[in-house]
Amino acid sequence: MTDTSTLPPAEPGQIDPVFLEDLADAIDERDIRWLARTLGRMHPADAADALEALPYDTFEEAVELLGKDLPPDILIELRDSYREGAVEMLPDQAVAQALDELDSDDATTILEDLEDDRRERILEDLAPVDRAELQRSLAYEEETAGRLMQTEFVAVPEFWTVGQTIDHARDIGEDLPEVFYDIYVIDPAHRLLGIVPLANLLRQPRETPLEDIMAEPTMTLNTSSDQEDVAFQFQKYSLASAPVTDDAGRLVGMITVDDMVDVMQSEHSEDLLALSNVSSADASDTVFETVKARLPWLAINLFTAFIASAIISVFEGAIEQVVALAILMPVVAALGGNAGSQGLAVAVRAIASRQMDGDAARRAVLREFLAASFNGLLIGAGVGLIAMFWFGDTGLGLVIAVAMFGTFLWAGLSGILVPLGLKRLGADPAVASSVFVLTLTDVMAFFSFLGLATLVLL
Amino acid sequence: MTDTSTLPPAEPGQIDPVFLEDLADAIDERDIRWLARTLGRMHPADAADALEALPYDTFEEAVELLGKDLPPDILIELRDSYREGAVEMLPDQAVAQALDELDSDDATTILEDLEDDRRERILEDLAPVDRAELQRSLAYEEETAGRLMQTEFVAVPEFWTVGQTIDHARDIGEDLPEVFYDIYVIDPAHRLLGIVPLANLLRQPRETPLEDIMAEPTMTLNTSSDQEDVAFQFQKYSLASAPVTDDAGRLVGMITVDDMVDVMQSEHSEDLLALSNVSSADASDTVFETVKARLPWLAINLFTAFIASAIISVFEGAIEQVVALAILMPVVAALGGNAGSQGLAVAVRAIASRQMDGDAARRAVLREFLAASFNGLLIGAGVGLIAMFWFGDTGLGLVIAVAMFGTFLWAGLSGILVPLGLKRLGADPAVASSVFVLTLTDVMAFFSFLGLATLVLL
Repeated sequence: MTDTSTLPPAEPGQIDPVFLEDLADAIDERDIRWLARTLGRMHPADAADALEALPYDTFEEAVELLGKDLPPDILIELRDSYREGAVEMLPDQAVAQALDELDSDDATTILEDLEDDRRERILEDLAPVDRAELQRSLAYEEETAGRLMQTEFVAVPEFWTVGQTIDHARDIGEDLPEVFYDIYVIDPAHRLLGIVPLANLLRQPRETPLEDIMAEPTMTLNTSSDQEDVAFQFQKYSLASAPVTDDAGRLVGMITVDDMVDVMQSEHSEDLLALSNVSSADASDTVFETVKARLPWLAINLFTAFIASAIISVFEGAIEQVVALAILMPVVAALGGNAGSQGLAVAVRAIASRQMDGDAARRAVLREFLAASFNGLLIGAGVGLIAMFWFGDTGLGLVIAVAMFGTFLWAGLSGILVPLGLKRLGADPAVASSVFVLTLTDVMAFFSFLGLATLVLL
Repeated sequence: MTDTSTLPPAEPGQIDPVFLEDLADAIDERDIRWLARTLGRMHPADAADALEALPYDTFEEAVELLGKDLPPDILIELRDSYREGAVEMLPDQAVAQALDELDSDDATTILEDLEDDRRERILEDLAPVDRAELQRSLAYEEETAGRLMQTEFVAVPEFWTVGQTIDHARDIGEDLPEVFYDIYVIDPAHRLLGIVPLANLLRQPRETPLEDIMAEPTMTLNTSSDQEDVAFQFQKYSLASAPVTDDAGRLVGMITVDDMVDVMQSEHSEDLLALSNVSSADASDTVFETVKARLPWLAINLFTAFIASAIISVFEGAIEQVVALAILMPVVAALGGNAGSQGLAVAVRAIASRQMDGDAARRAVLREFLAASFNGLLIGAGVGLIAMFWFGDTGLGLVIAVAMFGTFLWAGLSGILVPLGLKRLGADPAVASSVFVLTLTDVMAFFSFLGLATLVLL
């Protein structure tokens, strides 16, 4: 056991400032031994957090100092931008050594960061077996099970017993993957026959044949399975790991739940950001990256905002005669926009959690229509009454109430139909939905309110 | 092994319509045997999906028909609203039997659904040991590790060897928890000393003492730990399960990653919905539930929208003289609102993933300020030029450009300061943030644009 009594406590997100100073001092004094020993004794995730909490220059110094003494486990726990920076600074030899020590899925992540020629050079340094394996992993599409899986797993023949399996594990000991939860049972052609969770292996007598206790795989992941589908199935079936097979049914890899948790987190973040018109975001983003992720959407919105203006300009005459219209216009647009965003968020979430298939979609459209009618009636009446009393004009109150109601219906329907339509077209329902929905709602709001006013009040 | 060849394929979210018809027919014909056998042979998650795909009446009929033959595993996989409905229909005896069969965390979920007096009645039916255990679980606060943990786990004394541990597991066999990934090592006072992952147990010789191979727990969860913190640590440390101790350091339970994945999903959904002003949502919501989750936010927005109107009404005279102001007003508000939402989404996400502590928050505020300045400059110039050419009025172009720039700065800062402030106040940064930010932005947009126009153009 490691003595961890002098290490900083593992509070999430909280790094002891005294420890951070010690770390910075050690880097300043180029005390490589202290650095390597201290970081090596921490949990890699904590060590990565501590390094990321340093000013970026100091972080780079630390990486340069440590070189090949930077534990690969820490490298892999760093956030994307830090890891990429670190890999760029490390000498080829250190990167090759890290690739050698890491599981294949983590090694692939590091290879993805490299420039093509550097990647070739470093791969040349590896043992031919390892090189071939990593090249095969890289050949799978990004965001597929093939790219995410590790090629280290434990597979044994069906005719083995529990005892033989345990003896085998003891024999190869250190060569087993560091983390695994299941033993896979295969036939001579390497086809997956069944799964034996370690907890089941443990409770069986030595002489029990594996084929008697193995379970049919709950799901069969193919190397080309989409990562979002894989994550969904991990959640649905409460799995800790799952085998991956190739098109011929041969077992080629294993995916563990921690990687799926990361996929879920990033898919969620993407949805949340996309709904607010941000392409990507990371806490370590520079101002330039922040602008790049937002400006294009603002530029699109600039265009759509002027569409709304153009609608208003059609009714210039009406506004000149009844200035109250200009005062009330934004109320219709703001409330309609809010109603549209509400429906949109619910729809995007339901689509992401696979609750919008077939009949469910039809039921949801009907429900949105009815909810929008009801909310539109109540909010329309409220807005109408306030406008009537404020401007002492019953006609104006009626006009805005009816326009509000119409805008709610329109917003409610576009809030669900736009994401469903994007999904049907094979696009991501979260991306661009909100620009569409808000533009449609604004146009409807101004057109119905000013149009009705022109008909009724002038 | 179960013969699953005749079962529907486990495609996520896709249920074979022919199978659904068979299911409905069997319910219609009250063929309890077929139902129990077929559902029992499916993965509980698939069986739950199939039942949820039936019309709700038919689902209720199925539950009534099956009674205590409804496998508890399926009950627990049903969505909240369906599970609550099913539990309500099942006879007390069937519920008691389900509680007996399920792990304690799942049993607690079912108990939470019950009315107080029925819960007492059913608990009376259980064996005193089970009753005491479930009552203890229910005594923990909701959304804490104590409430989420299961009290079934495997703990052995430190002086045992690998061989003794495996023999013990074989002896108690069926009494072991169905799923576990680690063996916990405890002292005579039941205090947690270390953890031995099954994969490590397996690779060690029989005679190795556990104390030589046990690892210090990566994190120590207390029964009162907040579920969001627990989920965060599961992700950070890539865990499949973790032990839970009471205030005296005694091991009292275990949490597995599948429950944490569910927590992450619901926390994410809450954030996404809260940012769009929806209190809660489920695909099976009725129209009434949908209205209830949205109308209160619309009512608040009704009030804030009229604040913006009041600002406009102050400048009534200006609008009467220059009607172009009314035409362009929504452009400033829409673009400012978009910039505010962008920053808000990024901030809420960063807070949720613990990337906004201490110095990171200050850096983020600075970054938002700079990004808003840059975007404000470009978009302001764009809007200004379009307005200038459209209305042939350089002054108007300048006024809207400056107003746009000011609104962007204001939107950018409120997008980050409002959620940070709510967090500091101990409130959920996602809830109510967007109403605040959009109202602040609208007010600023109208005030700066119309105010500047009055000063410069009239």
